[in-house]
Amino acid sequence: MPQPSTTTKTTLSEPSAMPDVQSRADHRDLAIDRVGVTGIRFPATLAVRDSQDNNTMATVATVNMFVALSAERKGTHMSRFLELLNEYRDGLSPDRVMELCRHIRDELDAERAHVELSFPYFISKQAPATKREGLMDYEATIICESTSTLDDVRLGVTVPATSLCPCSREISEYGAHNQRCLIRAEARFTETVWIEELVEYAEQSASCPVYSVLKRPDEKVVTEQAYDNPKFVEDIVRDLATLLEADKRITWFHARSENHESIHSHNAWAEITRHTGPENDLNA
Amino acid sequence: MPQPSTTTKTTLSEPSAMPDVQSRADHRDLAIDRVGVTGIRFPATLAVRDSQDNNTMATVATVNMFVALSAERKGTHMSRFLELLNEYRDGLSPDRVMELCRHIRDELDAERAHVELSFPYFISKQAPATKREGLMDYEATIICESTSTLDDVRLGVTVPATSLCPCSREISEYGAHNQRCLIRAEARFTETVWIEELVEYAEQSASCPVYSVLKRPDEKVVTEQAYDNPKFVEDIVRDLATLLEADKRITWFHARSENHESIHSHNAWAEITRHTGPENDLNA
Amino acid sequence: MPQPSTTTKTTLSEPSAMPDVQSRADHRDLAIDRVGVTGIRFPATLAVRDSQDNNTMATVATVNMFVALSAERKGTHMSRFLELLNEYRDGLSPDRVMELCRHIRDELDAERAHVELSFPYFISKQAPATKREGLMDYEATIICESTSTLDDVRLGVTVPATSLCPCSREISEYGAHNQRCLIRAEARFTETVWIEELVEYAEQSASCPVYSVLKRPDEKVVTEQAYDNPKFVEDIVRDLATLLEADKRITWFHARSENHESIHSHNAWAEITRHTGPENDLNA
Amino acid sequence: MPQPSTTTKTTLSEPSAMPDVQSRADHRDLAIDRVGVTGIRFPATLAVRDSQDNNTMATVATVNMFVALSAERKGTHMSRFLELLNEYRDGLSPDRVMELCRHIRDELDAERAHVELSFPYFISKQAPATKREGLMDYEATIICESTSTLDDVRLGVTVPATSLCPCSREISEYGAHNQRCLIRAEARFTETVWIEELVEYAEQSASCPVYSVLKRPDEKVVTEQAYDNPKFVEDIVRDLATLLEADKRITWFHARSENHESIHSHNAWAEITRHTGPENDLNA
Repeated sequence: MPQPSTTTKTTLSEPSAMPDVQSRADHRDLAIDRVGVTGIRFPATLAVRDSQDNNTMATVATVNMFVALSAERKGTHMSRFLELLNEYRDGLSPDRVMELCRHIRDELDAERAHVELSFPYFISKQAPATKREGLMDYEATIICESTSTLDDVRLGVTVPATSLCPCSREISEYGAHNQRCLIRAEARFTETVWIEELVEYAEQSASCPVYSVLKRPDEKVVTEQAYDNPKFVEDIVRDLATLLEADKRITWFHARSENHESIHSHNAWAEITRHTGPENDLNA
Repeated sequence: MPQPSTTTKTTLSEPSAMPDVQSRADHRDLAIDRVGVTGIRFPATLAVRDSQDNNTMATVATVNMFVALSAERKGTHMSRFLELLNEYRDGLSPDRVMELCRHIRDELDAERAHVELSFPYFISKQAPATKREGLMDYEATIICESTSTLDDVRLGVTVPATSLCPCSREISEYGAHNQRCLIRAEARFTETVWIEELVEYAEQSASCPVYSVLKRPDEKVVTEQAYDNPKFVEDIVRDLATLLEADKRITWFHARSENHESIHSHNAWAEITRHTGPENDLNA
Repeated sequence: MPQPSTTTKTTLSEPSAMPDVQSRADHRDLAIDRVGVTGIRFPATLAVRDSQDNNTMATVATVNMFVALSAERKGTHMSRFLELLNEYRDGLSPDRVMELCRHIRDELDAERAHVELSFPYFISKQAPATKREGLMDYEATIICESTSTLDDVRLGVTVPATSLCPCSREISEYGAHNQRCLIRAEARFTETVWIEELVEYAEQSASCPVYSVLKRPDEKVVTEQAYDNPKFVEDIVRDLATLLEADKRITWFHARSENHESIHSHNAWAEITRHTGPENDLNA
Repeated sequence: MPQPSTTTKTTLSEPSAMPDVQSRADHRDLAIDRVGVTGIRFPATLAVRDSQDNNTMATVATVNMFVALSAERKGTHMSRFLELLNEYRDGLSPDRVMELCRHIRDELDAERAHVELSFPYFISKQAPATKREGLMDYEATIICESTSTLDDVRLGVTVPATSLCPCSREISEYGAHNQRCLIRAEARFTETVWIEELVEYAEQSASCPVYSVLKRPDEKVVTEQAYDNPKFVEDIVRDLATLLEADKRITWFHARSENHESIHSHNAWAEITRHTGPENDLNA
């Protein structure tokens, strides 16, 4: 993993003899939990699982970056966040987000730093019958926090899928209402978990996955698969929680689904959050 | 209809001898199509159809207001838009939006004024079998434009409903994919059309309406009704267009549906816009 | 405070001999933290502070409602949330949200219920010099949670205001960059705190409040007031936290500001969350 | 420019003897203006202006694709849109969007096809005094329409910038309210116009550009530059329109600005749309 260059401190030193208002003392005796910058869009580069050639995928992340500010300091140096981020302008990769996070903690002289990335992630997927290829996009997040004693990472992904209502199916002569749902799987882990694995867990928990390209033979498969596999929003999160709990690498998870009910204008929602490994102070 | 009070000009006269930068001449020889204010939230009061007691309903509108600015004038007086709007602070009603629009044209000394309102509109709806009551909300819009020769009004509403795919139904042994769709009906007319009427047209064009409260006997009804009534997104907009075309009060319409496909992460979309009565220059 | 009517249980009993899939046993041994419905829009009625005639204000809330579901139960009865909400169709008032929350816990036979409301709140405000009136809107939230041993309420409001940068002012010959910021104040309390009070705390913490109507003499006042009162995003949240901390009714607060920097396309952000009174298990 | 391969028709033939519901006749005698798919996210690859090595930039586009549907046909084949898009999965480039558009018109046997792309575009920008580098992102759009007689392309970009109020500056003893504005420049042209050029036109029309990284000497420059260069929202769109009108490659433009007023919670808005070259039927 590339190391922050030793000249970085020099780079970030303030460029002039102008008054440094931010560095003045503050007398309100109030530490700030988080101060930083939000809503930055930035290129990101991601490793692709199972790639024979160490392929990467390019995407665009929305980035938020924060530090804790001690009570005695008037302000943080906001421009440094951007200067540090800019060192990754050829594409910030997920495995370097924690490096950036530590880098920020260092350069902004803070007890704690926090970086959030959210970005579309693409997976090529074959239709179930015709095997036609199509690109699916999933919204993924990486949240890193770094203190002097602990590094904490959370990986998450939101997966569109089909849910079909067991009650509607059972009480109706024919048909059953179904709809798009957005399943969210988020995890902390001790060994690498791939975004693709979280996507698979979420899709296994739905009535049926969704696809980009579906020809008629495929449409028949997904229609019948959803009907054969009815799930309440409660079933989806319980099945997802069961899969995440069984994965020994995972020490904490959040399982959630929001179903865009086709018979209502409101949504159905369920969520389960659990520690499944040893807790630490940032997990708590 | 209430008339602007004769003291209004006084109200809106500028309050001091300060320089009036906006009123200076401009030399770029460029008229501005629209200048104004956007994103204002404001209380609105609406008449309820078929109310025995002339009942009204309170809601909150998002308001945009614009005028055309002639080439020789440097700027418009933005504060006047807000002062004029504020005269309706007890609740702007749809039938007074055109009054506000003319008022703006007058007070800002413009050739053309334009006011847009968008607001949630509530209709109480009974479940189809148990007749349990529930409140449905629909996003409605009123768009008014006023020139010296013409007043133009467009009324629109977005209606959530169920669509069920005819292809999926026909090729599958059992089941059929269905989903929430958002149907949009927008019209110009010669005689009053109620929001409730546009909602009914949209719901008749779907596979089935959606409801706020559905008990099990209701859920059976809507599941089977949708299955009995399959519609592509193309069918929905054609059926809606047919209903709007047949209404002799309507002189122009826009019919649209966006279906949140339960088997894809993308949406299906169709739209038809037509003049069905005499055109005028603002319709064109 | 009005009590749920004694006939409610009857109202919510299931209407038929149809199979009740939701009530079946579940064997995955996983309780669900929250299950419910989201994204409902509903009329709300609010008391106005200092009103001589007990005036109320009408607005529209977005509502989310949840319960905790025990491990042995397959599903909750989603339609009951809507039936219970519908009893407040003449306008849900903030002081009855906890009543609704308890009602839900009861009728859905849950250990815990949770209701969230978010709605625009209007306050009439006079321009600082000309005293012209204009209606300001603020996004307010009420979050209630009810268990068998505890009722917990959080009130919050997001307040647009002006922030002017102290550093820019100090280092520049003339001018200073300023921008709209969104200040968030959220609190738990032992005695009633009004939305108006949280708005005032937030506005006092900014460089200057914003207004709906400003004539030229007013614009001079706010321009100079902001310049006389420069604040970093850090200053805003510290000043807000100081005010909230000093209010003896408040036992917990969250103070936050997001500044839409006029010299960047990203935002500056700061937040402080503190317990200032005795903690309880839901506060923790 | 690469040509659609001759085997495409084969690729998109329907894969089975299943009933083809979409291809059936329709008897409502209503052509559909636009039918298609919306909300697809897809990788895009863009050429970088002035790149010595023909460098490209990777980004993610949101894509909408439509065709006109004749009155006699029941439905379009939605899956073909996705299959055609998927041929560009290594990164759709702007100069190939029209190719995709024609491809769609062909394969869906339509009179007219329409493709819309919107994506973040990155430009590295140096701070004005310290020359520190930072990456700015701009939201760009490409809209293509193809008929048997005409291809039409519109390129657009939304540019965040600083606007400083001339009135506030003139009437105040010190200071002037300023804010972030979002300037939109959109154009049709006869010869290639780069996104970078539209960005430059927009930034020249503002009181001052915004930057990603600004150190104190830079902040002094932009604060004073904005103060030296006050602009109403009307001035911004007129100055932008003047620049676009003077560019002889451009035949049509839309110039717009939305200013997020720092002294209000609403926005100021102005827009100018003009034909400056020969019109054609799609421009009209």
